[in-house]
Amino acid sequence: MTVALCPGSFDPPTNGHIDVVQRALSIFDRVVVAVVRNPSKTPLFSAQERMDLLRGAFPDEGRVEIDSFEGLLVEFARSKGVDAVVKGLRAVSDFDYELQMAQMNSSLSGIETLFIPTSPAWSYLSSSLVREVARLGGDVSAYVPPHVLSALKERLA
Amino acid sequence: MTVALCPGSFDPPTNGHIDVVQRALSIFDRVVVAVVRNPSKTPLFSAQERMDLLRGAFPDEGRVEIDSFEGLLVEFARSKGVDAVVKGLRAVSDFDYELQMAQMNSSLSGIETLFIPTSPAWSYLSSSLVREVARLGGDVSAYVPPHVLSALKERLA
Amino acid sequence: MTVALCPGSFDPPTNGHIDVVQRALSIFDRVVVAVVRNPSKTPLFSAQERMDLLRGAFPDEGRVEIDSFEGLLVEFARSKGVDAVVKGLRAVSDFDYELQMAQMNSSLSGIETLFIPTSPAWSYLSSSLVREVARLGGDVSAYVPPHVLSALKERLA
Amino acid sequence: MTVALCPGSFDPPTNGHIDVVQRALSIFDRVVVAVVRNPSKTPLFSAQERMDLLRGAFPDEGRVEIDSFEGLLVEFARSKGVDAVVKGLRAVSDFDYELQMAQMNSSLSGIETLFIPTSPAWSYLSSSLVREVARLGGDVSAYVPPHVLSALKERLA
Amino acid sequence: MTVALCPGSFDPPTNGHIDVVQRALSIFDRVVVAVVRNPSKTPLFSAQERMDLLRGAFPDEGRVEIDSFEGLLVEFARSKGVDAVVKGLRAVSDFDYELQMAQMNSSLSGIETLFIPTSPAWSYLSSSLVREVARLGGDVSAYVPPHVLSALKERLA
Amino acid sequence: MTVALCPGSFDPPTNGHIDVVQRALSIFDRVVVAVVRNPSKTPLFSAQERMDLLRGAFPDEGRVEIDSFEGLLVEFARSKGVDAVVKGLRAVSDFDYELQMAQMNSSLSGIETLFIPTSPAWSYLSSSLVREVARLGGDVSAYVPPHVLSALKERLA
Repeated sequence: MTVALCPGSFDPPTNGHIDVVQRALSIFDRVVVAVVRNPSKTPLFSAQERMDLLRGAFPDEGRVEIDSFEGLLVEFARSKGVDAVVKGLRAVSDFDYELQMAQMNSSLSGIETLFIPTSPAWSYLSSSLVREVARLGGDVSAYVPPHVLSALKERLA
Repeated sequence: MTVALCPGSFDPPTNGHIDVVQRALSIFDRVVVAVVRNPSKTPLFSAQERMDLLRGAFPDEGRVEIDSFEGLLVEFARSKGVDAVVKGLRAVSDFDYELQMAQMNSSLSGIETLFIPTSPAWSYLSSSLVREVARLGGDVSAYVPPHVLSALKERLA
Repeated sequence: MTVALCPGSFDPPTNGHIDVVQRALSIFDRVVVAVVRNPSKTPLFSAQERMDLLRGAFPDEGRVEIDSFEGLLVEFARSKGVDAVVKGLRAVSDFDYELQMAQMNSSLSGIETLFIPTSPAWSYLSSSLVREVARLGGDVSAYVPPHVLSALKERLA
Repeated sequence: MTVALCPGSFDPPTNGHIDVVQRALSIFDRVVVAVVRNPSKTPLFSAQERMDLLRGAFPDEGRVEIDSFEGLLVEFARSKGVDAVVKGLRAVSDFDYELQMAQMNSSLSGIETLFIPTSPAWSYLSSSLVREVARLGGDVSAYVPPHVLSALKERLA
Repeated sequence: MTVALCPGSFDPPTNGHIDVVQRALSIFDRVVVAVVRNPSKTPLFSAQERMDLLRGAFPDEGRVEIDSFEGLLVEFARSKGVDAVVKGLRAVSDFDYELQMAQMNSSLSGIETLFIPTSPAWSYLSSSLVREVARLGGDVSAYVPPHVLSALKERLA
Repeated sequence: MTVALCPGSFDPPTNGHIDVVQRALSIFDRVVVAVVRNPSKTPLFSAQERMDLLRGAFPDEGRVEIDSFEGLLVEFARSKGVDAVVKGLRAVSDFDYELQMAQMNSSLSGIETLFIPTSPAWSYLSSSLVREVARLGGDVSAYVPPHVLSALKERLA
């Protein structure tokens, strides 16, 4: 049984994130989606809220496990027994940084990172852009699932 | 059981190609390494020779299957029942083209392409560069396995 | 009245090309779509055929003029009295080359090139990829309009 | 009559910004240059000061309108009746981010963003670099018009 | 006698920095390695500590001078009589920003910046990544020399 | 005494090439400018003609040596006793390929490649673009020195 780890901030989860997890599910037996808890940042949603939003995005998918971690990705990956880290790739955005992280993680622990292209339809999506547009009153219903939209509206009201 | 497809020209196979296949083997149960036969190109080694060179690179690895194909990648992938295409990623070289192909293949058939970073040590390697250096009399023993080195020397003698 | 020039090989025109012209039409009063005739290349479709395929893509749009030219883009642009060259921008593919051409054309004649992002849905499309997939027997009906699909099938039969 | 919108921080306006507006004026009938007011940032010059510096850069150009806005770009664009957003393109700097914004804005409202290459002479210029050099006592007279230079000297004195 | 200037934050120095200085030493007669003191940042190590760590990295190399500066790079370079600034180049990371700075510095003073590729082995290394991994308890002994490792452990204890 | 090697096709030499050599001269004691003879290509100007055009570009500069070579760059570099290879860097054009070559050459022989940014004014120039524009009858007098312009006109007449 092969297990993939999809780490991220997910603040909030977008259709792009969900697309990547679904693509990973078409290849791996199980996918651990893990919220990175970063004590030096102040997210819009708490780690617990982000985990709940992720859970709500995969209501009937028993092969998806939602979790969170603080500290080194490679140690969390080891503790979960994952076979590979899987990250979405949106054109070249952040690509350099992601490749740097992947090489470092491979060097630290031998764990490999696989990059999976997101759907072209979501190539311009990011959590920060969704937050920014929603904050300014724009309609983000095309970019997040309904339960995330409700949470955004409530939080920014 | 998960199966990955590593397609390429492999003219000749380099240490970088072998590194990618080995990384794929750490994640997938089986890896099909397939030589792309392109009738409009005149390779240095025939498709059969390239298959033999690949076989020689994984002498004791029963989980690697060597094959070749002509035509659409997505049809070959379907015929082999592979779960994903796996390609090495060397910094940004060819990245745009590779992403374009991945999106097209996903659109044509739903098959996903995973990009796996090559070892930094091989980040500058390519078959065409190895051919060029070898043709000019340079020492490429650091970039290919011994049996490929012998084949290169014989061919270019 | 403002006039844009959309030059290209259009061998054949794709949905991505049509998308760019339509975006240009939302900004400019008229759009000249011009097939570049390059005597040193052997296209799949003749310049006349490519012009006919373009015409067929804008049957009821009186603001689109189809033309062709050989020689310097800037001289053709001057002869047509265009205000700007408009090119589609697909992620970073060819971006460097396009920027280089734009700077050269601006330096040669003062004519500006505007880059307009293509729809994410067509970000991976190119004429050469469509030709390659069609040649190998793949289904390209999602990437070109019906009359181009018919022409492709007939030509490659 | 076609109208372009050139949004930006303009903190302060540089010769590169002025170059982009002038290129836009060669294509569009009118250009709205709009200072983005971002309450979460503390600029060197207030929005009003930046508008005044922009006005001083186009003293005799009746086709340029200076304005400012807070909130969604697409709503401001709609309220002004602009035909397109026009942004300068300096080699690849910020290109990914700009393309992401352009796709989002097109998705939100249908408004298109046109990218226009800046003069090679200003390809390395940015407001933040000008501020940094000026703060450290460097001579930035080659990068901004005289009235901006005076304002910078006064502010940083 | 030719003199190169290698400026940087060096917070802390990594094997990648040391590699670049050694490559510069193979070309230039002398190399000035200079810590940039930035009053608006709070580094992990003070400027004096960073200079000591750099000195410890080149214990027997009389051709390396360690220094620090605040303010404009080009003025410091002039005061030291250097012939060129030398920066490491790690794939494309930060490349755009570095090229922008190089063009600005050339424009301000005529001093040239030379980019020297780092060893592929260190292509993914950066001080910030080393700090982050060390802070989270990861083993960074492969990325910094022993005396820097000790200093990191002591500081983060 | 430090010696730099500037290799290239120089078919023909442009103002951009001359700019790079002049920048190299401000840092190195001597510069060897070497035409790469590639038997599998058919250049517009022969190797001897290209050497003559280069010589004409540095009529009074005793520190410039013009040469040509066929075969491995690193062997020619060794035979000339050069300290480093120096290449111009035009934004990101060809950057990936150039970095790949630099890493390969460093691996083959230990010789380092230094990249020096070209003047922004020449950032879009290349020999192939100059040839193409000249062939189509465009005015390239702004991009090459007068004696190269004459040679181009004569050759293309």
